[in-house]
Amino acid sequence: MDDITFAVLGTGGIGRRALEVSQHKDALTPVAACDRHGVAFDFDGLDVDELLAATEGNIDSEPRSGSDESNGDEPRDNEVATDGGTTAAEGGVKQHGEDKGVVASSQARPSDDPIQEVIDHGDRIDAVLLALPNYEHDFIPRTADRFAEGGYSGVMIDVLKRSRVIDMLDDRSEEFEEAGITFICGAGATPGLLTGAAALAAQSFVEVTDVDIHWGVGLKSGYEDNRGTVREDIAHLPEYDIETARNLSDEEIEAIIDDHDGVIEFEDMEHADDVLLERAGVCDAEDVSVGGILDVRNDEKPTTTTVRVTGRTFDGETATNTFQLGDETSMEANVNGPALGYLKAGVRRNRAGEYGVFGPADLMPGF
Amino acid sequence: MDDITFAVLGTGGIGRRALEVSQHKDALTPVAACDRHGVAFDFDGLDVDELLAATEGNIDSEPRSGSDESNGDEPRDNEVATDGGTTAAEGGVKQHGEDKGVVASSQARPSDDPIQEVIDHGDRIDAVLLALPNYEHDFIPRTADRFAEGGYSGVMIDVLKRSRVIDMLDDRSEEFEEAGITFICGAGATPGLLTGAAALAAQSFVEVTDVDIHWGVGLKSGYEDNRGTVREDIAHLPEYDIETARNLSDEEIEAIIDDHDGVIEFEDMEHADDVLLERAGVCDAEDVSVGGILDVRNDEKPTTTTVRVTGRTFDGETATNTFQLGDETSMEANVNGPALGYLKAGVRRNRAGEYGVFGPADLMPGF
Repeated sequence: MDDITFAVLGTGGIGRRALEVSQHKDALTPVAACDRHGVAFDFDGLDVDELLAATEGNIDSEPRSGSDESNGDEPRDNEVATDGGTTAAEGGVKQHGEDKGVVASSQARPSDDPIQEVIDHGDRIDAVLLALPNYEHDFIPRTADRFAEGGYSGVMIDVLKRSRVIDMLDDRSEEFEEAGITFICGAGATPGLLTGAAALAAQSFVEVTDVDIHWGVGLKSGYEDNRGTVREDIAHLPEYDIETARNLSDEEIEAIIDDHDGVIEFEDMEHADDVLLERAGVCDAEDVSVGGILDVRNDEKPTTTTVRVTGRTFDGETATNTFQLGDETSMEANVNGPALGYLKAGVRRNRAGEYGVFGPADLMPGF
Repeated sequence: MDDITFAVLGTGGIGRRALEVSQHKDALTPVAACDRHGVAFDFDGLDVDELLAATEGNIDSEPRSGSDESNGDEPRDNEVATDGGTTAAEGGVKQHGEDKGVVASSQARPSDDPIQEVIDHGDRIDAVLLALPNYEHDFIPRTADRFAEGGYSGVMIDVLKRSRVIDMLDDRSEEFEEAGITFICGAGATPGLLTGAAALAAQSFVEVTDVDIHWGVGLKSGYEDNRGTVREDIAHLPEYDIETARNLSDEEIEAIIDDHDGVIEFEDMEHADDVLLERAGVCDAEDVSVGGILDVRNDEKPTTTTVRVTGRTFDGETATNTFQLGDETSMEANVNGPALGYLKAGVRRNRAGEYGVFGPADLMPGF
């Protein structure tokens, strides 16, 4: 495959790590990175080391990494950072100074509307990784609208988790097709890597009766550094939802953590693996369950991340195929490698003229 | 995806089961099946039940199913059956009678050159599954040549095992591209399902250091019914090669089986998983090892078929991701489901104008 240029929107956990991982990938050249303060372009390839070093610890309102073995960045409301034009129109609260966010890099410059600048250079960008916070569920879909309206025709890819966002993107399918955009959604760990594994494991069967995704995450940096995403995960607990979790104080979150002795177990999470597998014809969404265990006080994973796909073979047997991630792989590794892998797959589709909305399972062998 | 029409060349184990499995798959319509005796066409969809029932036990020189957790049909020299025009040109030794092979089906009729007939109807056939014996390693490549020369532009797919055949197909890449053929090679269990799983499992890593594929097969029908493929597997043993295995008498094969108490272990098999993963940029071919255990006297698998992918993550950890097939899935299920899944993926590529030679890992997210 020819060289692929890509942009990263958002320089929080996902965005920064995607840039880092891309340095290990052939034929993948980061040419743009932006946050709400500014934008860096270099069409010969950004100097990722400089950019990461210059901005380390200097990312304003950095969206914390996802705390489950999933897709990261859905942080607190007030962390919605790279909202370019919208916030500008609301009064220009950006551009707090050249030493904030990406602008600390010598490759970057301040911008009133960094996203628009990326859109304006879209003809030189094969793919755009949306590493944006999405606590407001329509932020990524709205950003995609801007790209479509701005004449961008390439790949857009997100690593979102929640099922309802997929529906919002699906509603835009026709718009994307007309624009020539190939939108890959839910392409991190879960949904993403694990959804793809489920779609592949399903190939032994003529009917899939059950997909069980169970992740384990041990947060290296402890829960104090990850309150933002712990908050997001708390929204998945049965007693809470997005609204109530958003309104929790830090002290209340700490109290919840303490109540669980630092280990929180999640069941029946609203993860888009279900709708993505149904879209791909693998099984009914209701046959997919996603859960996991988050240990905020240990580095070790409290359980091995496992996908179990149970089905019936053409010759009448019932069996379970299993996919397991090594305990030593970090959530970050399992999000960003697959994201870039799906990005490559998306570019291939885009270059072949396939537009619209695709999930990870859509990029696997057909079921 | 729109409906897909496909043809099966060869009505041995793989061909028959592919027809059977396709009945469980949406949007997949078998429209042609042939063996060396004749050909059946129905562009509204073959009556698979009738065809399978009419030909059961009546398949002349039926290529036996592959005995390892792999891709079947590479039977004895004298089982090379569906060689259409070539054999006809050598003196018309086909058409032994209407009760032989596929011709026993009321949907089929005898033909002097069944493959040419399929080629002549190629404009109504989206994909061709080459379920042909390939003990002569160039038989499938030569058959592909006939399709390209005959003006076919669609998908061709095989479930071959040996690395050297991939090279022969690669040599034809330009020819296929010019013809508009999307050739998917090695798309059964291993290479195939397990190669794809390895490519997906690799996504956690920035460098893959080791891929270990280890299969277990328990032959339900016992070794007496499967001497042909046991013979093929014996060719993978260090003391034998294709030539020496071909020349073994049935008694000699039985003696080898007895020497091993019915359980033969294989190491460092010449399976194309290695070259297919290297093609896709996942790892070096030399870092891939394929082995397995064949138990010809028990139904149960002597070991669980497992893919282990070991690599280094971007954050410096070394880990192993694992994919396991349930012991209850038969080799047949693990070959034919993936073959049809990759066939669907191939048709999608073909319709998007992507031609040439693809392996299973090429159809996964990019590494």
